[in-house]
Amino acid sequence: MGTTDIYQLVETIAQQADKAALALATTDTSTKNNTLLKLAELIEAHASTLVAENHKDLVAGRENGLSTPMLDRLTFTPERIQAMAEGVRQVAALPDPVGETIEEQVRPNGIHIRKIRVPIGVIGIIYESRPNVTIDCAALCLKSGNASILRGGKEAIHSNQALAHLITLALRANGLPEETVQLIPVTDREALTHLIKMDTYIQCIIPRGGEGLIRFVAEHGTIPVIKHYTGVCSVYIDAAADPDMAQAITLNAKCQRPGVCNAIENLFVHSQFAETHFARIAQALVAQGVELRVDQRTQAILRTQDIAAKLATEQDYAAEFLGLILAVKIVDSVQDAIANINRYGSKHSDAIVTADAATAQTFMTAVDSATVYWNASTRFTDGFEFGLGAEIGISTDKLHARGPMGLKELCTYKYTVYGNGQTK
Amino acid sequence: MGTTDIYQLVETIAQQADKAALALATTDTSTKNNTLLKLAELIEAHASTLVAENHKDLVAGRENGLSTPMLDRLTFTPERIQAMAEGVRQVAALPDPVGETIEEQVRPNGIHIRKIRVPIGVIGIIYESRPNVTIDCAALCLKSGNASILRGGKEAIHSNQALAHLITLALRANGLPEETVQLIPVTDREALTHLIKMDTYIQCIIPRGGEGLIRFVAEHGTIPVIKHYTGVCSVYIDAAADPDMAQAITLNAKCQRPGVCNAIENLFVHSQFAETHFARIAQALVAQGVELRVDQRTQAILRTQDIAAKLATEQDYAAEFLGLILAVKIVDSVQDAIANINRYGSKHSDAIVTADAATAQTFMTAVDSATVYWNASTRFTDGFEFGLGAEIGISTDKLHARGPMGLKELCTYKYTVYGNGQTK
Repeated sequence: MGTTDIYQLVETIAQQADKAALALATTDTSTKNNTLLKLAELIEAHASTLVAENHKDLVAGRENGLSTPMLDRLTFTPERIQAMAEGVRQVAALPDPVGETIEEQVRPNGIHIRKIRVPIGVIGIIYESRPNVTIDCAALCLKSGNASILRGGKEAIHSNQALAHLITLALRANGLPEETVQLIPVTDREALTHLIKMDTYIQCIIPRGGEGLIRFVAEHGTIPVIKHYTGVCSVYIDAAADPDMAQAITLNAKCQRPGVCNAIENLFVHSQFAETHFARIAQALVAQGVELRVDQRTQAILRTQDIAAKLATEQDYAAEFLGLILAVKIVDSVQDAIANINRYGSKHSDAIVTADAATAQTFMTAVDSATVYWNASTRFTDGFEFGLGAEIGISTDKLHARGPMGLKELCTYKYTVYGNGQTK
Repeated sequence: MGTTDIYQLVETIAQQADKAALALATTDTSTKNNTLLKLAELIEAHASTLVAENHKDLVAGRENGLSTPMLDRLTFTPERIQAMAEGVRQVAALPDPVGETIEEQVRPNGIHIRKIRVPIGVIGIIYESRPNVTIDCAALCLKSGNASILRGGKEAIHSNQALAHLITLALRANGLPEETVQLIPVTDREALTHLIKMDTYIQCIIPRGGEGLIRFVAEHGTIPVIKHYTGVCSVYIDAAADPDMAQAITLNAKCQRPGVCNAIENLFVHSQFAETHFARIAQALVAQGVELRVDQRTQAILRTQDIAAKLATEQDYAAEFLGLILAVKIVDSVQDAIANINRYGSKHSDAIVTADAATAQTFMTAVDSATVYWNASTRFTDGFEFGLGAEIGISTDKLHARGPMGLKELCTYKYTVYGNGQTK
C-alpha cells in the first residue's frame, strides 16, 4: 500500500472507532456479556479454522527464522484455544465497571454531585507476537465499554485476522457496531506511526511488548500512553528478618517463574543478617540453578562457605535478567536498602522481610514503587492475585493507573450533577 | 546562555527535583503546613519588595507593548498580594491527601492489600503571564507532596523570581530541601523544550495557558501531560423544560463571566420549546448584550418578534468565543442535542434543562463530557464549587484526572501489601 492509502486506512479505522465508542458507552451490560459469551462459543466452534490459519503464521515464522520461544508463543494448541474461550467467559462474569458511583456529595447549595465510572473511549493496543492478546484485549475493552483498535505483529497476522473475524461475528450477532473492535489489517511500521498520532479519535495507547516498542510509541506519538515496562524488582532482607521466611520469599520471588516482570533481579541483605544467615540462602539459590552476582562483602561471606560468586557490575543492579541470575548487595540499614531500590529498581514491586514493624513502615513509605510488600513475595503483583479478575497489564507509570490494570483502570470518570435550577 | 548550558541547567534542576521529591514524599503534614504558613507570612511581610519587582516587569511590559488586559493580569496590587497569602493559608488548612487509604482488602491467602494515595513525584508547571500561578501551584504541589518545577513567562520573570525567593526562605526555615520548588531562571523557549523531555526525572507536566502552548508541550514532550484546554460548553433546553429555569440557567451560564472555560458558547433548543418560549429568552440574552448566531429555524422564530440575529456558520458551533456571543440551534430530540454536543463541544461541561427524568438520564449518560448537569448551570465546574478547596485547573483529558483537579488529583497511588510469609 502507498503512504497516503495507509494514512487513510488508519484514519478511517480511528474515526469509525470513535463513532462506535459513543454507541458502546451507552450499551447495557447484558448486551456486552452476550457478545462475550457468543465470542467464546465461536472460538470453540472454529478451533480447527484457527489452527489452520495459525499454521500459516508458523510456516512463515519458520521460513523467517523466528526463534523457538517465539514460535512457541505464536502456536495455537487445542488447549490454548480452549483457554482463550475460558478467559473471555471469565471477563463476561466480572462486574461491569461502567456506571459505578465512585463518590457522591450534596453541596451546600443543594446540587448533588455524583462521580461515576465511564469508558475512556477508544483504546489502541499495540502488541507483538502472542495472538491470544487479540482476544484478551478485545474482551477487556469491550466489557469496560471501550472501542479498541488492535495492532498485532506481522508474524501473527493470519491468526489475528481469524480471531478478529470471530469478534466481528459476535458483535454483529448482538447488534453492536462491527467497528467496536478493529484489527489493523496491515502490519507496516508506517501504520503504527500514523495510529499513535490519531489523538482526535484515540484517547489512550497501551503498548504490550518490549521496551523498544514502548519507547517508540511514547516518543513518537501524541496520545497518552500507559506504559508497561517490565520489572527490576528487589527483596530486602532486614536485620530483624526471620531466616526461614527470608529464604522462602527470596526463592519464590527469584525462582518460581524468573521470566516474568514481578520476579526479583536484586537482593539486598542487611549486614547483620548476612553474617549469620546469608550463606544458607545463597546455597539454596545456587541449588535452584541461580547465578549470583555479588558485591565484595557478600563475596567474602560466601567464600567462607566455599560458594563461588562473581562480582556484580553496577549495571547488574539495574538489569532485568529475566532468568536465573540474581544481583546481591549487603547494606547497613533500611535507608541504604531504600536508596538502592529507588536508584536501581523500576518502581514495580519490592519487598522487605522483617519482624520489625517500624522498619517495615519506613520501607513501605519510602520505596517509590507501585507495590511494596512486607513479608510476602513480589510475585503477587498480578491482576488475578489482586482480585481484579483479569488484567490488561501492569502499569509502571504513575499517572492514571499504577500496578495491575483491570477493568476499572480501563475506565475514566465523569461528574453528573443534579440540581433544581441552581445558578449559585 | 549557550545551548549546552541551558540543557545542563534544566537537567540539573530536574535531577535535584527528583531527589527533593523522595524526601518530600515522607515529610509529615505539619512540616508541609508550617512551610505554607511561613510562606503566607513572608508574602505579607515582603509586599513592598514584591510590588517593586513587579514594577520592573510592568515597565518592561509597557515597553514591549503588552496589551492592557495582559498588563492587568501581570500587576500586583496590595489586595492581590493579600489574596495570594490567603490562598496559601487555605491550602495549608486542607486535609493532606498523602497516605489516605483509597481501598483495602484481605485476599483469601491472608495478604492484606491497602491502596494508598502517594505523591506523583516531580510535576512541571508551564504557565504564561499571571505571577500568582507561581504561588498557587507551588502551594498545591507542596501540600500534595510533589516537588515542582515552575516555568513562568518572560514577562513576569522579576515577579516570579521575587516569589520564588520567598518560597525558598519558607522551605529553608522548615528544613525542607530548597529544590522542592524550583523556578527555571531563564525563559528561553529552549529551556522549555528541554524540560518537557526530562522524563527520567519529571512524571507529569501541567501546562496552564493558551491552546498553542498546550499543543506544543503535548506534541514535543515525552512526559505525560494533563491538558487544560478551555471549554466549548452547551446548554440544551428540552421540550419539557421549565421556561423560567431555562432562562435563568442560560443567562447565568452565558453572561455571569463569559471569559471563563465553564461559560457556555452554544445553546441547543428543542423545537417544541422554541416555538413558544425561546423568543423571551433571546430577548433577555440580547438585553444582556449577547450577540446571537443562529440557525435558520431560530432566525425564523426570532423574526416574528423582530429580533435580528445573524446566521451561524458551522465553525461558530465549535468556537470558544470567550465573550458575549452565543451560537443557537434548534434540535428535534434529545438525541439530536447529544449528537451536536458530542460533535462540537470540547467535553468540558454541558447541561440539560428538563422536567423529564428519563430524558435527563439519557443526556447525562450519552454526553461524553467531564461534567454533565441536569437543571443546574455549567458555571459550577470549579474546584471550590466541587468542594476540593482549591484547584490546579480543570482537566479536559480523560486519563488520570478529568474535570476540576485538586490535591487528590495531584497524587497517584501505591499498593502496600502486608503478609506473614506468603509465597502463594
